[in-house]
Amino acid sequence: MQTILILGGGKSAIYLIDYLAESCLSKSRKLILADLNLGSAQEKLKDRPNTEARKLNIEDLSARQFLIQEADLVISMLPAFLHPTVAKDCLDFGKHFFSASYESDEMRKMKTEIEAKNLIFLNECGLDPGIDHMSAMKIIDRAKAEGEEIISFKSYCGGLLSPESEDNPWKYKFTWNPRNVVLAGQGASRYIDQGELKLVPYHRLFTRLDSIKLPGLGNFEGYPNRDSLSYRKTYGVENIPTMLRGTLRREGYCKAWNIFVQLGMCDDSYELDLPDKMSLRQFLNTFLPYDPVQTVEEKVADVIPDFDFQTWEKIQWLGFFGPNPLPKTKGSPAAILQAILEKNWKLYPEDKDMIVMQHLFELATKSGKKTITSTLVSFGEGSTYTAMAKTVGLPLAIAVDLFLDGKIKLAGLHTPVIPRLYQPILEELDKFGIRFKEEVLAKEGP
Amino acid sequence: MQTILILGGGKSAIYLIDYLAESCLSKSRKLILADLNLGSAQEKLKDRPNTEARKLNIEDLSARQFLIQEADLVISMLPAFLHPTVAKDCLDFGKHFFSASYESDEMRKMKTEIEAKNLIFLNECGLDPGIDHMSAMKIIDRAKAEGEEIISFKSYCGGLLSPESEDNPWKYKFTWNPRNVVLAGQGASRYIDQGELKLVPYHRLFTRLDSIKLPGLGNFEGYPNRDSLSYRKTYGVENIPTMLRGTLRREGYCKAWNIFVQLGMCDDSYELDLPDKMSLRQFLNTFLPYDPVQTVEEKVADVIPDFDFQTWEKIQWLGFFGPNPLPKTKGSPAAILQAILEKNWKLYPEDKDMIVMQHLFELATKSGKKTITSTLVSFGEGSTYTAMAKTVGLPLAIAVDLFLDGKIKLAGLHTPVIPRLYQPILEELDKFGIRFKEEVLAKEGP
Repeated sequence: MQTILILGGGKSAIYLIDYLAESCLSKSRKLILADLNLGSAQEKLKDRPNTEARKLNIEDLSARQFLIQEADLVISMLPAFLHPTVAKDCLDFGKHFFSASYESDEMRKMKTEIEAKNLIFLNECGLDPGIDHMSAMKIIDRAKAEGEEIISFKSYCGGLLSPESEDNPWKYKFTWNPRNVVLAGQGASRYIDQGELKLVPYHRLFTRLDSIKLPGLGNFEGYPNRDSLSYRKTYGVENIPTMLRGTLRREGYCKAWNIFVQLGMCDDSYELDLPDKMSLRQFLNTFLPYDPVQTVEEKVADVIPDFDFQTWEKIQWLGFFGPNPLPKTKGSPAAILQAILEKNWKLYPEDKDMIVMQHLFELATKSGKKTITSTLVSFGEGSTYTAMAKTVGLPLAIAVDLFLDGKIKLAGLHTPVIPRLYQPILEELDKFGIRFKEEVLAKEGP
Repeated sequence: MQTILILGGGKSAIYLIDYLAESCLSKSRKLILADLNLGSAQEKLKDRPNTEARKLNIEDLSARQFLIQEADLVISMLPAFLHPTVAKDCLDFGKHFFSASYESDEMRKMKTEIEAKNLIFLNECGLDPGIDHMSAMKIIDRAKAEGEEIISFKSYCGGLLSPESEDNPWKYKFTWNPRNVVLAGQGASRYIDQGELKLVPYHRLFTRLDSIKLPGLGNFEGYPNRDSLSYRKTYGVENIPTMLRGTLRREGYCKAWNIFVQLGMCDDSYELDLPDKMSLRQFLNTFLPYDPVQTVEEKVADVIPDFDFQTWEKIQWLGFFGPNPLPKTKGSPAAILQAILEKNWKLYPEDKDMIVMQHLFELATKSGKKTITSTLVSFGEGSTYTAMAKTVGLPLAIAVDLFLDGKIKLAGLHTPVIPRLYQPILEELDKFGIRFKEEVLAKEGP
């Protein structure tokens, strides 16, 4: 009997657990879910046959290693910094390792040994990274096979709200780790545009926007996300003149968010210890110059060009112009901002989220230029069964299942950029409605 | 015979060396100057009696400790990160320690032991920190003695060019460590203004300017420098409603420098490996969005409001709009910018520098409000005998001399914020023309 061990049963693991709990029953496998919170793990497993919840403190070396030795295959849903530790245990005890996180340098150092032990370590098999790789490589490989040259590839992804839940001016709520949302984009972003290398500092990121329109869903905007340049190698398009990966938000979000960035409110590098009863208005004023005459609103207007009603409304709705006390007065500016947002951007049980991913390709073909737009839209069912959890968890669950079925025959360190991985996974995802809609437009060339 | 050891005979040590070489002769003391470059040390000592040059690699533990044991008092002119190492040796061998750098936490940990051994460790006894403390405390202590309340203290300092050497549009050249100039102001700056805490992120620092006029010298501008708040405790003015320390530049400098900040060109957090023949114009364009129509100049104009001729001229004069190749293509954006500036902002032998320091106090007195403006202007004599070296080196040399003369009777860890230190040092500085001009203006109150 094969045993699958899932480490960490957090919010984004629900679809992964359900998929594997069901396939374990039909395929006579055993599923162990280990979490620091035993009750939460039991709740997610719902007493299904062939499943077992275990309490685990990941720092407890002997308990962790004991558990890993019980399994044939380990899925880590833990925070990314813990993956190398778990992967090292898997290597020592000869267990396969699966995750939805980025392949780290520490993981790469294990490559030779993974191969020597005939194991598979598959990372980046969630949404982003994951579905982005698979869906992009499907188009890139097909274009190459047809002798077409890819001259531009822009790819955007966003974890957003389903339109019916967009009930605040930001049209945004937290559907994943709030801290990551507050710190998103820090450090310089890099991409290439028409052959020109482009570097964007954080404080200009939210003005470097592309517009994206989705029929029936309206207008979005995308900002460049970290290092797009490294994907030229990952995707085998080393000489592509335009390559950009971006994060999607609702139209208008970035202009308002840019106020926090411009004011320095997303800074996580130093600690504040503010007066206990400081109001949101006073907190905002702390990031603005002293002025004997101007109001806080007027000073905010000086920070960004064209401070329009829609932008004012977003800041006002969060309570920043009002007298309410800060929910937190100690911590970095970013931590205090996060506390303010968590009060306001909470996902309610009836709220539904939405994942949008769009690839925009330009290709040079024998008969002229061609554009391919490939779009995924996935809706959540509620605040537990979110589109985020679905698109992160299902690719991973499917990969594990296909591997144990013997339908993926691979060893070594991998990400799903090769047909032997992405083809069967995308096929199975399609059955769950996770599918890209492709539009091809031939242009008069050149 | 008392022996003084100077560690490090760099650019800013010339006045320190000359002062002590002369006083050692008249007072029958011995001066040892130790430097990695023996020739340079010999050149600075000019074969004066009672002086001796030594070659020293500071990393060579036994050589360093051997030398320190020879001395009664050690002056560290080494880079600041080396001070704790030297100070620890001084503590172990019972030697006094003097520096012009900030008192570090590592140094503070030695406090009890310094006192127990009846040694003096004096830091922050140069220009800034140093002369700023002494001249400010003189006014603060006097005001307190007169029962006046200090309600505002702004203090500005700049290492600039003497007007006759202002022969480029920036009116600036490197008179000290170029790397520090390029990275100046990074991290959030903090001050208090009319009782309101103010936080300024780096990317807004060069727009948060105060204007300073100096009769006969024209217009300057000051931007807030790092953490002004901590000086409330240092200066014993814990409840002061306005406290700001700033860096002075020539009027117009900050607007042009802000272009580099806005573009992300001062970023030292990641490395570039650019094409060998990339031009300055292409480098500039790397930080600007792609545009099929706009010129690089037009795109720069979009980055800051009111891109005027004076600002354009500064960027143009550095060659940024031209075809010349970069002097360096590997390194962080900040390192590449530094290489460009070093080619253009080099101090020529005939160039003279200028130090400006200005304290602006507002006091509440029994008869109403009063302002005190206290200003120091010091000119260099050339590119070796700079005002920078003079104002950094003389306070330190004087402190050492007064201590060995028995005119400063103190033990423990100190900075020159107490009358027993600042009074005799300021008196002696006056003889070298380093003196503040004070203007007092009584206002109708309140």
